[in-house]
Amino acid sequence: MVKIAVLGYGTVGSGVVEVLKTNQKLISANAGDEIEVKHVLDLRDFPDDPIQEKIVHDYSVILNDPEIQIVVEVMGGVNPAYSFVKQALLSGKSVATSNKELVAKHGAELISIAKQQQINFFFEASVGGGIPIIRPLQCCLTADEIDEISGILNGTTNYVLSEMTFQGSDFEEVLREAQELGYAERNPQADVEGFDAGRKIAILTSLVSGRQVDFEDVYTEGITKISSADMKYAKKLNCIIKLLARSRRKDGQTYVMVAPFLIGPKHPLYSVNGVLNAVYVHGNMLGDTMFFGSGAGKLPTASAVVSDVVEAARHLHDHVEVKWSQEKMPLGKIADYVSRFFVRVKEEDQEAACALFGSEKIVDAGIAGEVGLITRAMTEEQFAHLAESVSLLSRIRID
Amino acid sequence: MVKIAVLGYGTVGSGVVEVLKTNQKLISANAGDEIEVKHVLDLRDFPDDPIQEKIVHDYSVILNDPEIQIVVEVMGGVNPAYSFVKQALLSGKSVATSNKELVAKHGAELISIAKQQQINFFFEASVGGGIPIIRPLQCCLTADEIDEISGILNGTTNYVLSEMTFQGSDFEEVLREAQELGYAERNPQADVEGFDAGRKIAILTSLVSGRQVDFEDVYTEGITKISSADMKYAKKLNCIIKLLARSRRKDGQTYVMVAPFLIGPKHPLYSVNGVLNAVYVHGNMLGDTMFFGSGAGKLPTASAVVSDVVEAARHLHDHVEVKWSQEKMPLGKIADYVSRFFVRVKEEDQEAACALFGSEKIVDAGIAGEVGLITRAMTEEQFAHLAESVSLLSRIRID
Repeated sequence: MVKIAVLGYGTVGSGVVEVLKTNQKLISANAGDEIEVKHVLDLRDFPDDPIQEKIVHDYSVILNDPEIQIVVEVMGGVNPAYSFVKQALLSGKSVATSNKELVAKHGAELISIAKQQQINFFFEASVGGGIPIIRPLQCCLTADEIDEISGILNGTTNYVLSEMTFQGSDFEEVLREAQELGYAERNPQADVEGFDAGRKIAILTSLVSGRQVDFEDVYTEGITKISSADMKYAKKLNCIIKLLARSRRKDGQTYVMVAPFLIGPKHPLYSVNGVLNAVYVHGNMLGDTMFFGSGAGKLPTASAVVSDVVEAARHLHDHVEVKWSQEKMPLGKIADYVSRFFVRVKEEDQEAACALFGSEKIVDAGIAGEVGLITRAMTEEQFAHLAESVSLLSRIRID
Repeated sequence: MVKIAVLGYGTVGSGVVEVLKTNQKLISANAGDEIEVKHVLDLRDFPDDPIQEKIVHDYSVILNDPEIQIVVEVMGGVNPAYSFVKQALLSGKSVATSNKELVAKHGAELISIAKQQQINFFFEASVGGGIPIIRPLQCCLTADEIDEISGILNGTTNYVLSEMTFQGSDFEEVLREAQELGYAERNPQADVEGFDAGRKIAILTSLVSGRQVDFEDVYTEGITKISSADMKYAKKLNCIIKLLARSRRKDGQTYVMVAPFLIGPKHPLYSVNGVLNAVYVHGNMLGDTMFFGSGAGKLPTASAVVSDVVEAARHLHDHVEVKWSQEKMPLGKIADYVSRFFVRVKEEDQEAACALFGSEKIVDAGIAGEVGLITRAMTEEQFAHLAESVSLLSRIRID
């Protein structure tokens, strides 16, 4: 019998309890031992829920209980999660977490503590919810130089962009709907500004490079400036606009960014719509591979957390190596990153803009008084410099 | 230093040597030790290849070399691969193989020997080439009752069907082209009759159920009867024809089959074209997930084999549990499996066929003298019985 404690009985926490209950037999068989939830930490009480008898309000009950071998942290946020997780690891309890803020900020340190203690710190659910991506990167794609990871890693923004694409609605309108449907938080900034995706691509890049990528260093651009006019041009170009979280190696540099991109129908991420997530990985030997599924949601996320619990139960006293040191990974300067851009300009600026950006293609989406152009490939720095000479209505990178 | 031997210097074997050489530093870092190819077994000599100095013609050199800790078997076919692999395991050497015939037939036994010896028998490359699917099933999707696996698991047939779809060509013509391009074998029977996909879905079902599924028990139908006329109807229905290898749990039974299916644009496998492979998995908690990539090819397959070598090097003296016993898994009878069918009948049989199959929808693809119908949902047995009363030009299941 392996006894575990769950920190936080919110959406994911109650999902973890539900997954463990629903698939109890199978999970025990996979883990090689029965898994039992002994304590659930939450500030609240749940008098009408059988969980109530396991609810504790004081973390020290869990920390000081020698029977607890695995702690599931699904509270979210850096504090007090960081302190709780660190104490758990230091007292010899393995940890499984879905908390991307925690992993992005303190992952390397927590892994090193787990290693010292010969236990484990697992975080499959922190990126891509139910999509298996963390463990496949660590134990499947190990023969390859990974030269690109491009992901649709945020369900909220993908839902919003999909609705804007297919319903022709405006950003604010779709966001409001998404909030009503529970697909977007009441405070949606972390999603729509790309910070959530930024943390996730920082985690994936850290795992692939073996070194710390701080998400504050990830160039991040959200979707708040994307308009229904942009969508009309995208449609005209037979493209779709996606918020991509991307890590790409080029000329010995790793460029990490989150930004909206125009992508065409042959792009592997083109048909990933709604709240779905997908991660495209390119290896120098493997070529293209893609992982696809539910990026969020109570049960898919809980399923990933429980698969970490199974793995932790299989390796109660041996550390599964995770290459992610605290040494900082130097990133390529985004100013040097080369893209083509789609830009919209007023009709009277068309000629000047074409000359400036070396555009050969004019796109007319039927919006009076303006046109779209596609620039030649240039660095971000070159583009920013040229863009000073003409007034742009919008600009989106092209992949 | 971990010394390995490669059995077979064909396409995959030379790929393994190439992957190990190209990514040597990274692979050693991932494995935690340097990996060196010491011997390569092949009947041939390769005088112009630096590999020549490692070539041995006699397997006993490898078997009796105590320095060899991992054997890579990439010869294909059951014999002598089975005997070589079994001897390797019995003498304490871990094995990584890409050989689906071997794994489908003897996987359970070879895993049990590896377990006794506290070493490993790994076979990631045997299904889906470079797509990570075996290990994710074993160490990621462990919290779920897997109720469906549907895969496009054979690149040759997917290429042929894609060309038939998009070029409107006939089966024989596309197959000939595919043979010229090296996408199809000179003897294509194992591919086009669905046997290759059948072995792969048998392996996946064995892993998910933990029991032996014999591929001879998998209901298998190939693509040789699919015509350009069928493709015209598929297009009219806004569908595409795919050879699916499928394992589905329903009412406590597991039905395993390989057959062409008509699938619509919302189907997760709809846009998997050409030589690509994909595996769709549905878990009772996780919902939909999909793995996608190169199902074959020298370097993608070799990359998967080398990732197994890395994993074997990480676990030289401990067995990574694989749930796959030799106990036979009882399968649901295909006669009881319920589908809707698309059928083509001569124009004069239209009325009788509509009444017989309860069809409400008539499809006219502009082919003189015939029409297409979609039947109501019925078991294979019911369909076979009804089909005796009318002459069918073709029939394809609908997913």
